[in-house]
Amino acid sequence: MNTTDLLDQIAFIKEIDKVKYIQRKTKLFNSDRNENDAEHSWHLALMAIVLAGHSDEPINILRVVKMVLIHDIVEIDSGDVFIYDTQKSHDNTDEERLAANRIFGLLPKKQAEDMIAIWEEFVAGETNEAKFAKSIDRLEPLLQNTSNNGGTWKEFDVPYQKVYEKKSVIKEGSKTLWTYAEGLINDSVAKGILKKE
Amino acid sequence: MNTTDLLDQIAFIKEIDKVKYIQRKTKLFNSDRNENDAEHSWHLALMAIVLAGHSDEPINILRVVKMVLIHDIVEIDSGDVFIYDTQKSHDNTDEERLAANRIFGLLPKKQAEDMIAIWEEFVAGETNEAKFAKSIDRLEPLLQNTSNNGGTWKEFDVPYQKVYEKKSVIKEGSKTLWTYAEGLINDSVAKGILKKE
Repeated sequence: MNTTDLLDQIAFIKEIDKVKYIQRKTKLFNSDRNENDAEHSWHLALMAIVLAGHSDEPINILRVVKMVLIHDIVEIDSGDVFIYDTQKSHDNTDEERLAANRIFGLLPKKQAEDMIAIWEEFVAGETNEAKFAKSIDRLEPLLQNTSNNGGTWKEFDVPYQKVYEKKSVIKEGSKTLWTYAEGLINDSVAKGILKKE
Repeated sequence: MNTTDLLDQIAFIKEIDKVKYIQRKTKLFNSDRNENDAEHSWHLALMAIVLAGHSDEPINILRVVKMVLIHDIVEIDSGDVFIYDTQKSHDNTDEERLAANRIFGLLPKKQAEDMIAIWEEFVAGETNEAKFAKSIDRLEPLLQNTSNNGGTWKEFDVPYQKVYEKKSVIKEGSKTLWTYAEGLINDSVAKGILKKE
């Protein structure tokens, strides 16, 4: 590593500070305060480490951790789109790809390529690591909404069917986590904090 | 893994949400908004990944990432103590050790033991991984203060000598990062944002 590399890395480190300003729709546990993307990504990284044993397939946990730490960095340019948004796709990948190229492109060439590859792998969701990372990414807001008396489901009038469909991605990474998640969703209907039409 | 393990892990995951409320003294880059411990830990994890090549010694990067992700969790019970605090030691380890036992102790036994061992290793600062993790932990607020016209140095009237002494820990993990950090400290004196008596 040379000094030019270090200065490029520092530029990237300063740029990603902006992730701390990107507000998500979901709130912290038992709270009215919105979570931001940096807090979310930190929480996912620790969830991945703690829950790794529940992955159905063998996973490289370092790669999963890298995925969840960087997965929302593109939102510096493209913004956070609510998963239940009815106007704009949650996975606005063309815009996000431009953002990935710009932001990870601040890094030295080889590192930039590696980071973009990890981000693309997460978006594609096909490897064991990406499937588990996506399971964790869907599980955290489920835990938050059930702790917040329905949270964004109530606030944005999201029905059971939509929640069930989006959350079933959890199954791709871990049957154990999905069984648990399915229980939380059904309990939420029983408690009246998630409407079933 | 069984269901009891999963429920214990979920209890831990919910408990550590409190890290998002622990305010640090340092502010975000070019900002008046205090950073919280979750944001700080997320940033350190990515800094560790991006800067790993500057470690003087071979490191297990997954272990470094785990260290920085969990290093401030004990502050849920013990609170954040400012590194330049003149009344209370920044490393109030007895209180922090109780906190580590309580919080990591929510996890299944083997995971709790592993997490406590990683936290203890960070605190002791003797392994290559702990030295590099501590380098990164000292570098982030240096970058923030130099971006914030002196930041906490000015706000709390911290002199060059104190800053130099605390930051020299960076040298234990990486001579390259220390050379860069030393340059930032000297530039700060030259710019008048850090006082040299």
